[in-house]
Amino acid sequence: MTATIHSLPKRPTPSMAGLMALTAPGLTQVNHVIIDRMQSPVALIPELAGHLIAGGGKRLRPMLTLGCAALLDYAGTRHHKLAAAVEFIHTATLLHDDVVDVSGLRRGKPTANRLWGNPASVLVGDFLFSRSFELMVEDGSLKVLKILSSASSIIAEGEVAQLTAQRNVETSEDRYLEIITAKTAALFAAACQIAAIVAERNAATEAALEAYGRNLGIAFQLVDDAIDYVSDADTMGKDSGDDFRDGKITLPVILAYARGSEEDREFWRRAMSGRANGDTELARAGTLLAQTNAVTDTLARARHYGARAIDTLAGFPNGPAKTALTETVEFAIARAY
Amino acid sequence: MTATIHSLPKRPTPSMAGLMALTAPGLTQVNHVIIDRMQSPVALIPELAGHLIAGGGKRLRPMLTLGCAALLDYAGTRHHKLAAAVEFIHTATLLHDDVVDVSGLRRGKPTANRLWGNPASVLVGDFLFSRSFELMVEDGSLKVLKILSSASSIIAEGEVAQLTAQRNVETSEDRYLEIITAKTAALFAAACQIAAIVAERNAATEAALEAYGRNLGIAFQLVDDAIDYVSDADTMGKDSGDDFRDGKITLPVILAYARGSEEDREFWRRAMSGRANGDTELARAGTLLAQTNAVTDTLARARHYGARAIDTLAGFPNGPAKTALTETVEFAIARAY
Repeated sequence: MTATIHSLPKRPTPSMAGLMALTAPGLTQVNHVIIDRMQSPVALIPELAGHLIAGGGKRLRPMLTLGCAALLDYAGTRHHKLAAAVEFIHTATLLHDDVVDVSGLRRGKPTANRLWGNPASVLVGDFLFSRSFELMVEDGSLKVLKILSSASSIIAEGEVAQLTAQRNVETSEDRYLEIITAKTAALFAAACQIAAIVAERNAATEAALEAYGRNLGIAFQLVDDAIDYVSDADTMGKDSGDDFRDGKITLPVILAYARGSEEDREFWRRAMSGRANGDTELARAGTLLAQTNAVTDTLARARHYGARAIDTLAGFPNGPAKTALTETVEFAIARAY
Repeated sequence: MTATIHSLPKRPTPSMAGLMALTAPGLTQVNHVIIDRMQSPVALIPELAGHLIAGGGKRLRPMLTLGCAALLDYAGTRHHKLAAAVEFIHTATLLHDDVVDVSGLRRGKPTANRLWGNPASVLVGDFLFSRSFELMVEDGSLKVLKILSSASSIIAEGEVAQLTAQRNVETSEDRYLEIITAKTAALFAAACQIAAIVAERNAATEAALEAYGRNLGIAFQLVDDAIDYVSDADTMGKDSGDDFRDGKITLPVILAYARGSEEDREFWRRAMSGRANGDTELARAGTLLAQTNAVTDTLARARHYGARAIDTLAGFPNGPAKTALTETVEFAIARAY
């Protein structure tokens, strides 16, 4: 039996074009702050920081602060400095992550630690982190300082927890969700929440934007972890299979291990321990992930958090900001397809 | 000709006993905050942090905050949290320094990075640093936040500057002083200055205590750098000759290089570049340092800054706090003798 497939009128592929257009003028201001405040008489600091900051970062977190401020019709400029502070925190964690992960590539370029060594990456990260607090102090809101200092502690806790879980295939899905909520979603959440502070909105609005950022952050990380098993360095600017080679336990592995035979589990234990994690093993990992639907279901989990993120926006007025923030979630998910 | 040497009535050897006695009750409170706030559900954090924090740290910086508060007759308790914040910043920089320096021993014990690896040291440092800002936010003074976030940036800048100067024997004494003022003295200065903030004193008092801490910090670092060429691991809890082996340019080397013959300079260039820095070379370095009075004169410089630190206290009322802070400077210098 044959059937004629009629293609339905397709929704356009989700993109961040809406958020980018909405936030472009603000982002120019944020970039001015970023470039201005990463300067130092110590030349290595702007050199190394510029490699990562000027070098094609997506500015996703600052755009979220700007987008949420637009959602609240905030007409001031305080959020420019604060969005820069958020980006500095993010950049500092990237610099330290690359030292921790011994990464070689980020966004398709050699990592700072490969170019300048671990010591410089650690110390310039510390500088940017301190600088982010200086920016917050200049803004002068203790509420913002509380949110971002707490987020920073939680990020570090999440990173240490991830280190502890490294190579441990028995890590549960719950534990994994705790880790990514801390190491990734906390800063997304804070970036969105501070828009409500500068716009002087009530606690419910703060909570809604915090939840939007948190759920988006979880979805984002889940998709990233799935992508590590499907893409290659050319398309994503990240070495495919990095997580596998580093023995980093992500949801695809957790699901494949839980659903695998005893023989499969023994494979995962050996691979994640670093005893057998070459290209042959990466290929077998791909086969096992496909057999157990582990990547597919990781993406299903991501869609769940994406849907929750979109639902947090229900109480806000319709308009370009709400549309842009909704499409950002859809784009975060669609990256994997 | 022989002479009978009459010993003069000697001043007691300088010690920190006065500052310790003065600050003991406050330090108990500070230690409670420290232990309480280094906790985390992620067990590796208190384990690693405890190794350094609980393990025999001198608590010099918190004691300075407490001592300066006593000098101002401050009767409140705000400085307990803030002194803990200062100690967390200090501990974070130690954890990162050990990664940067690839040290093996600190305070006579294996360093955290030797025991738990670089990644854990970097991330737990980040956690303590974030936690220190949470403590400051709880205190709620934007002035304190400004002083300590600025000090943190300056410390990181100083550490990067030191990295840049590493192995460069042409580093000038001026440049070296800039570096140690940033990486060491800035936190001493901030620790003292914040006592004036909590005691709500005027700008002149703030400036005097800032100058006390800064000059003490410079003296302290100069003596440390001299000690690295005179002590051994048993007495100081630090590997003697560490700086030499790391190619770290300190004032003894700067003076010996500047005062040396062309042959001596060639020796220093080779040694500091890491091409020839074994025990034989360390012995020769000791000879050259002695010939050029480089260690002796480093200590003379330290006495200069120590004298300036003591003079900043002139305007404060006499009493046990002023005596204790004066003796602390004398002790910092006397460690080398």
